[in-house]
Amino acid sequence: MSEVYAARRARLHDQCTAAGSAAALVSRPANVRYLCGTVPSGAVLLLGPVQDVLVAAEVPATPPLSPGPPRADEPRLLVLPGADGDPAVAAADLAAVDGAESLAVEEHDLTVARHRALGAAAPRVRLADLGRAVEQLRLIKDDEEISCMRIAGELADQALGELLESILVGRTERHLALELERRLVDHGADGPAFPTVVAAGPNAGRPGHLPTDRRVEEGDFLTICLGADYRGYRCQVGRTFVIGPSPADWQVELYDAVFAAQRAGREALSPGRAYRDVDRVTRQVLAAAGFGDGLEPCTGHGVGLEIDEDPRLTPSAMGKLDACVPVTVEPGVHLPGRGGVRIDDTLVVRPEADGGPELLTITTKELLAL
Amino acid sequence: MSEVYAARRARLHDQCTAAGSAAALVSRPANVRYLCGTVPSGAVLLLGPVQDVLVAAEVPATPPLSPGPPRADEPRLLVLPGADGDPAVAAADLAAVDGAESLAVEEHDLTVARHRALGAAAPRVRLADLGRAVEQLRLIKDDEEISCMRIAGELADQALGELLESILVGRTERHLALELERRLVDHGADGPAFPTVVAAGPNAGRPGHLPTDRRVEEGDFLTICLGADYRGYRCQVGRTFVIGPSPADWQVELYDAVFAAQRAGREALSPGRAYRDVDRVTRQVLAAAGFGDGLEPCTGHGVGLEIDEDPRLTPSAMGKLDACVPVTVEPGVHLPGRGGVRIDDTLVVRPEADGGPELLTITTKELLAL
Repeated sequence: MSEVYAARRARLHDQCTAAGSAAALVSRPANVRYLCGTVPSGAVLLLGPVQDVLVAAEVPATPPLSPGPPRADEPRLLVLPGADGDPAVAAADLAAVDGAESLAVEEHDLTVARHRALGAAAPRVRLADLGRAVEQLRLIKDDEEISCMRIAGELADQALGELLESILVGRTERHLALELERRLVDHGADGPAFPTVVAAGPNAGRPGHLPTDRRVEEGDFLTICLGADYRGYRCQVGRTFVIGPSPADWQVELYDAVFAAQRAGREALSPGRAYRDVDRVTRQVLAAAGFGDGLEPCTGHGVGLEIDEDPRLTPSAMGKLDACVPVTVEPGVHLPGRGGVRIDDTLVVRPEADGGPELLTITTKELLAL
Repeated sequence: MSEVYAARRARLHDQCTAAGSAAALVSRPANVRYLCGTVPSGAVLLLGPVQDVLVAAEVPATPPLSPGPPRADEPRLLVLPGADGDPAVAAADLAAVDGAESLAVEEHDLTVARHRALGAAAPRVRLADLGRAVEQLRLIKDDEEISCMRIAGELADQALGELLESILVGRTERHLALELERRLVDHGADGPAFPTVVAAGPNAGRPGHLPTDRRVEEGDFLTICLGADYRGYRCQVGRTFVIGPSPADWQVELYDAVFAAQRAGREALSPGRAYRDVDRVTRQVLAAAGFGDGLEPCTGHGVGLEIDEDPRLTPSAMGKLDACVPVTVEPGVHLPGRGGVRIDDTLVVRPEADGGPELLTITTKELLAL
């Protein structure tokens, strides 16, 4: 496994050299994890002119990274003594000592205050911007990563499936969310990928809804969105149900529109397709069905070590899909005061010749009346 | 309630004026919440030269803040149209339009990238640093805030108390943590204040330990640290138990030392006492008992809208306690491979004449063998 991390660091080194930077400082937690594996909270990675160093404020609990002579393919570990030091500042100081004239940092992660402290600690080092170089490396997942995400998808499907077999009416959104998260962990997830969304009745389909004490009632739309974290890799699934013997006509009409839009989005996933195209075809279906207003800015997004990562499937997104890029397709419509529908899958982009996108979240998308 | 927020914003205005800043931009989520109440995720507050404006990327779900004519004591609400705008950038632009020559921003919150975007959007506005002005305002809690924290403390105590009545041997750390979080919500918490820590056997007392699949065994130390979130206000409690009929001698010795240290810390809490003093007396007790090595950098910290806020009780902390400042006192000792002890209370600093510090977390600190 550590060869994988070493290879990723080597690729980043090559990118930095090509961009004219002698050294780089990676501080964003998911990026540090991508390049080093599990590290103590707050640890930063210095790709230095002389050596790679992981700088942490505390000793890691578990191997492989521990103080002592480094293995050839591991970064040296430096643990700061004492209280309140910022590992990023110590790393900048190290880079200066090792003779770096410039240091590329993640300006989208470091606060202004931390950046100033780096500059003060290493005044002769020119601070440049690494930009989203590591996020770009993370876009295309290898087999091991996709395997973890596949398992995360199974765990989410399992938890959801079990919940649907239980009685929902009368239970609060909060309770159902916690129940789902417990089942995720019971089945082997490291935890939920994000705070589980359960939205009933007028709350259904509302973007960013956090579970409340509203109880599920007959006639409600019920939207559920959950995700599992398996070895750091995430996967999310979202479904909409109707509570009661059968849905009302307006509910069927809305559901069919969102289903069609989401299917259009899924079918648009192929290597070389522009991000904004996937978003556009989804929006067009919703607009044609009369639900074009008040849609969310984003049809889907990448998934990996973070539940929300590059790429973003939005109208203004630049870039094209590649094979082995996992994304969500999650359009939704919310009608304030009435409810709404959201349907959300995680899929891995695959060549058409290989059967098209690989669906990681297989819970049925048929509208179930529960 | 909105009068409370208006009064807080007025105090911040006064501070800014005194510091020579015509306008301020508050972006740190807990700070925005302190000044405005519950707002959409990512919303920022502009205290402008002409008006106060809450800038958000999405419409709030619930009153009182909604688009339309503002009430006299509410900031105007501006919701950005479309996809990917940064509310902070829009706020800086507004400040410029309203004639601000300078804008104090939270340099410890804004990333370099966001700060650059603000500068580009409002090039004639001089960006200054607001520093931790809002964190300072948040230090001393009013009765309503303490009341919420009191309830949060009760909820944490309740959840913990219930768990102790159940069978623990054979259950994993992860399961116990999830069980505690479920009970917190069952009893009325909005959620856990932070990821619950359950650490058994060799993991016990380890700082920053996240629950694993290790099962509780007879003879273990078991350390539990949990917190409740009630209406945004948090409270945390931490206790250590021994599993089995009775503790071993080394366990009693270690527990007594940490208990004595924590008691010394609690008894040091009074208005006017230096932060570093509280930390020092706690460390001294542990050092005198032979456990002075490898202690953590921080004996305790403030609690409020965030589980970890100003002040910090560390050896180098500057400042003194005030009445109505809630803090934790949470020393611990971890012996790698063997286990450890952590005892953690949340208390509100009160004058000696009023009976000394008010303890919010009343679960017994006697060493229980479970």
